[in-house]
Amino acid sequence: MVKNDAEDLAKKMREVSVAEFFEKNRHLLGYENLTKSLLTIIKELVDNSLDAANEAEITPTIKISIKQIKDNRFKIISEDNGPGMVEDKISYAFGKLLYGSKFHRLRQSRGTQGIGVSGAIMYSQLTTGKATKIISSTGKNKIHEIEMMIDVEKNEPKIISHNEKDNEKGWHGIKIIMEAEGRYTEGKQSILEYVRQTAVANPYAKIIFDNPNSKIVFEKVTNEVPVQPKEIKPHPYGIEIGIFRRMINKSNSRNIISLLTTDFSRVGRNSAIEICRISKIDHKRKPNTLTHDEIDRLHEGMKKVKLISPATDVLSPLGENLIKEGLKKEVKGEFFVSVTRPTAVYRGNPFLVEVGIAYGGDLKQEGSAQLIRLANKVPILYHQGDCATLESIIETDWRRYGFSQSSGSMPQGPLLFLIHFASVWVPYTSEGKQAIANYPDIVKEMKLGLQEAGRKLAIYVRQKNKLKEKMIRKQIFERYIPEIVDSINDLTGIDKKKLKEDLEFITKKNTKLEEEKENGK
Amino acid sequence: MVKNDAEDLAKKMREVSVAEFFEKNRHLLGYENLTKSLLTIIKELVDNSLDAANEAEITPTIKISIKQIKDNRFKIISEDNGPGMVEDKISYAFGKLLYGSKFHRLRQSRGTQGIGVSGAIMYSQLTTGKATKIISSTGKNKIHEIEMMIDVEKNEPKIISHNEKDNEKGWHGIKIIMEAEGRYTEGKQSILEYVRQTAVANPYAKIIFDNPNSKIVFEKVTNEVPVQPKEIKPHPYGIEIGIFRRMINKSNSRNIISLLTTDFSRVGRNSAIEICRISKIDHKRKPNTLTHDEIDRLHEGMKKVKLISPATDVLSPLGENLIKEGLKKEVKGEFFVSVTRPTAVYRGNPFLVEVGIAYGGDLKQEGSAQLIRLANKVPILYHQGDCATLESIIETDWRRYGFSQSSGSMPQGPLLFLIHFASVWVPYTSEGKQAIANYPDIVKEMKLGLQEAGRKLAIYVRQKNKLKEKMIRKQIFERYIPEIVDSINDLTGIDKKKLKEDLEFITKKNTKLEEEKENGK
Repeated sequence: MVKNDAEDLAKKMREVSVAEFFEKNRHLLGYENLTKSLLTIIKELVDNSLDAANEAEITPTIKISIKQIKDNRFKIISEDNGPGMVEDKISYAFGKLLYGSKFHRLRQSRGTQGIGVSGAIMYSQLTTGKATKIISSTGKNKIHEIEMMIDVEKNEPKIISHNEKDNEKGWHGIKIIMEAEGRYTEGKQSILEYVRQTAVANPYAKIIFDNPNSKIVFEKVTNEVPVQPKEIKPHPYGIEIGIFRRMINKSNSRNIISLLTTDFSRVGRNSAIEICRISKIDHKRKPNTLTHDEIDRLHEGMKKVKLISPATDVLSPLGENLIKEGLKKEVKGEFFVSVTRPTAVYRGNPFLVEVGIAYGGDLKQEGSAQLIRLANKVPILYHQGDCATLESIIETDWRRYGFSQSSGSMPQGPLLFLIHFASVWVPYTSEGKQAIANYPDIVKEMKLGLQEAGRKLAIYVRQKNKLKEKMIRKQIFERYIPEIVDSINDLTGIDKKKLKEDLEFITKKNTKLEEEKENGK
Repeated sequence: MVKNDAEDLAKKMREVSVAEFFEKNRHLLGYENLTKSLLTIIKELVDNSLDAANEAEITPTIKISIKQIKDNRFKIISEDNGPGMVEDKISYAFGKLLYGSKFHRLRQSRGTQGIGVSGAIMYSQLTTGKATKIISSTGKNKIHEIEMMIDVEKNEPKIISHNEKDNEKGWHGIKIIMEAEGRYTEGKQSILEYVRQTAVANPYAKIIFDNPNSKIVFEKVTNEVPVQPKEIKPHPYGIEIGIFRRMINKSNSRNIISLLTTDFSRVGRNSAIEICRISKIDHKRKPNTLTHDEIDRLHEGMKKVKLISPATDVLSPLGENLIKEGLKKEVKGEFFVSVTRPTAVYRGNPFLVEVGIAYGGDLKQEGSAQLIRLANKVPILYHQGDCATLESIIETDWRRYGFSQSSGSMPQGPLLFLIHFASVWVPYTSEGKQAIANYPDIVKEMKLGLQEAGRKLAIYVRQKNKLKEKMIRKQIFERYIPEIVDSINDLTGIDKKKLKEDLEFITKKNTKLEEEKENGK
């Protein structure tokens, strides 16, 4: 080993391309083992198709085909009926990491990073050395067939071939054909589970899933496409000083009022004037003439003025009905409860939490509760141990709701949780998008949702337990009736049959009266 | 909400800079809450200083100062005695994400990504709007004082000021001064815990830790700087086809033999000829003339030839003694065991696992086992739920070693685990470097280490339990001696005192004999 001094080290320094970084760290994107890698590919393709259809307000029909070619090698085809992609953007959208239309905005969508499908294509070429074929049309013009790879060292697309075909039928959408190493399994954390849960969370989508074992069609169960979430501006309470400075420096606004009212949400003219007054800055000043110190004061002033919380209509929840429906498709429970919380804010980003609980029925009496997680209507299956959802359940005291729970653990009993997190920006713990980071505001809100659902569940469980106790008391009494009859007959000589019937009648009547009293009749 | 067609979407597409990406996703770097953010900053600074000193073979002395300025705002100063940095590299090394000397090599080090300190500076300016000051000299020339920020949209450094000072004393090293939002706590998952564990894992380093509550000096306890790990070439078994193609295409080697023997580790001339023979390719061919198909064949051929495993001297383990010492500093246990596994391979990268277990003593009899995790001698404190170390413990059957354990959980009992993972490339689950991805080869190796340590522990626990049973039997017998004496005295009239002494002597002798037998005397 040669000793390195500062000069030696300097010679070795160079830039790392984003693609190189994620190629070497492919587990960050969800490609650390064969089973998960295949799931990640499918997830990226489906999420992308659903987003594209949603943006264009098209009822999505998505075809996914996975066929085994040889050991650990699969051919994957995805096809959607979305808006397609403009010719000159195709190679960049799919051949460059950190490139896309969703990052620089605040709007609820499945993808945001501009990594997803490009990452899948990179994994495909890493494990097979093969190019990916993209077929696309916007419906108005020709069908483009592009074979491409990614130049990893440059993080740029490399087009191998490009053909155009007539598009007489006006087809629009995107079809992607690739090969990759993987393993196909069904059961827990499988593609099948992902597709099934996706179908439940997106009941207006038709998904045709042609897998190595069978072909399954998930028909759409409603024609009602949910209202599209709106894009919003950041809320002043959550904006960090570093980003605020950049907004000010880049701003072309006439004055501070104009900046505050147009580049932020929930700031009206009066609030803007009040912010300037508190910050001791003339509201007629042009933003890009402010000094560092003035910007800092304005930033602090913004947080002192009372403003309305972020808009609540920018998010698209599943809704309490769909959550119960989803749970019912998972298990035959005996009781279901669901809660949609109001919109809350972390780092200035609106989000909302929905919680569902299934109880009893087919669920196992013993053992830990189970958990289904969704983020912006996408099922997430891995890294549960690292997810804000799990932390929220663990930090909730389930003994208050009648369940046993040791500290730092899931509650025990026949419980299945579902937690949906919807936000204009989901803070995933890694680029593989499998767990939600535990920002304090998020965990707090999840716990409130769980407590609300927990209280409702507890009422049911308590009533059920009371009824059970009563039944046991009744059964014990009934068991002693013959003995009592014998004793009374010995003492008084009253007819045994009549006595038995009378006692049984009284027992039944009492039980009924008690039940009616409880039900408030 | 306006409907977006393909043209609308195309207009919104653009590149995202790496810095923008991590600024918006700062939780990926470990900056999701105040407490953890402050820890992440300190960790990046210390890891960087230790790496620099190691590269230059300098015994490190590191000063860290954390002082509270106001609510949630801290001034952080770090200073090392490393080789320093060449003037024109300072701003890039600390002002550009994905830039550094460690990414494009395979060598055990704490940092690799070229994100760490740049990320801390980005978080500093995001939360305070302030510049960071870097003071550096290589010892041979002047002291440079650079005030800088990061242009996030370009991912480029922005120098605010640059001063030079005379360096009469020949000082070398790097001093960094920044402000950031944070919260200082002591206890679990704290900076203090991180620094303490770092001192244990790096006993040749002196660390002066000046925190808001006290000033603690961790003196070095040895002058022996461990042998520096070597840089290695990739092993043919782990190289993916995508990367192999790139190596071939870029190669200037005369022929395939030259490529295989110089750009890979563990391939000698004979193995190289054998690889070519199996792949049916003339070994005199120039690599960059090979067709796609030929490269694929060569890639498959490489995996069929028997090659030696990656070199074992490229990794720097803690060693079994240091692991026990480390555990002893954590707890007063009654039994300690440690295991250093031989080198293994995942994705062609050599790695090794070390396992330590402390048992009994002050450790709590009830409740789950605890876990200390280290990667390349760096303590990792967060995201345990998502770490290959935890998964390995959970998947090991501890009931075989005498502990209770419910499925999917840590074993119960007075146990403290330590797992150290050393590799030329640590696959962290996120850029915040807090958990190791569960590649199957890694989990397997960790389980083997745990089993080996578990077996040794089980022998001790079993002996202890046997001894305990024997003591109980002895005590019971002793308790009955008076009654036996009375009975025998009644029957035979033998002197009670003498009889009692005799019986007690026999009991003692038998116990002693049994013990000697067990100890093999």
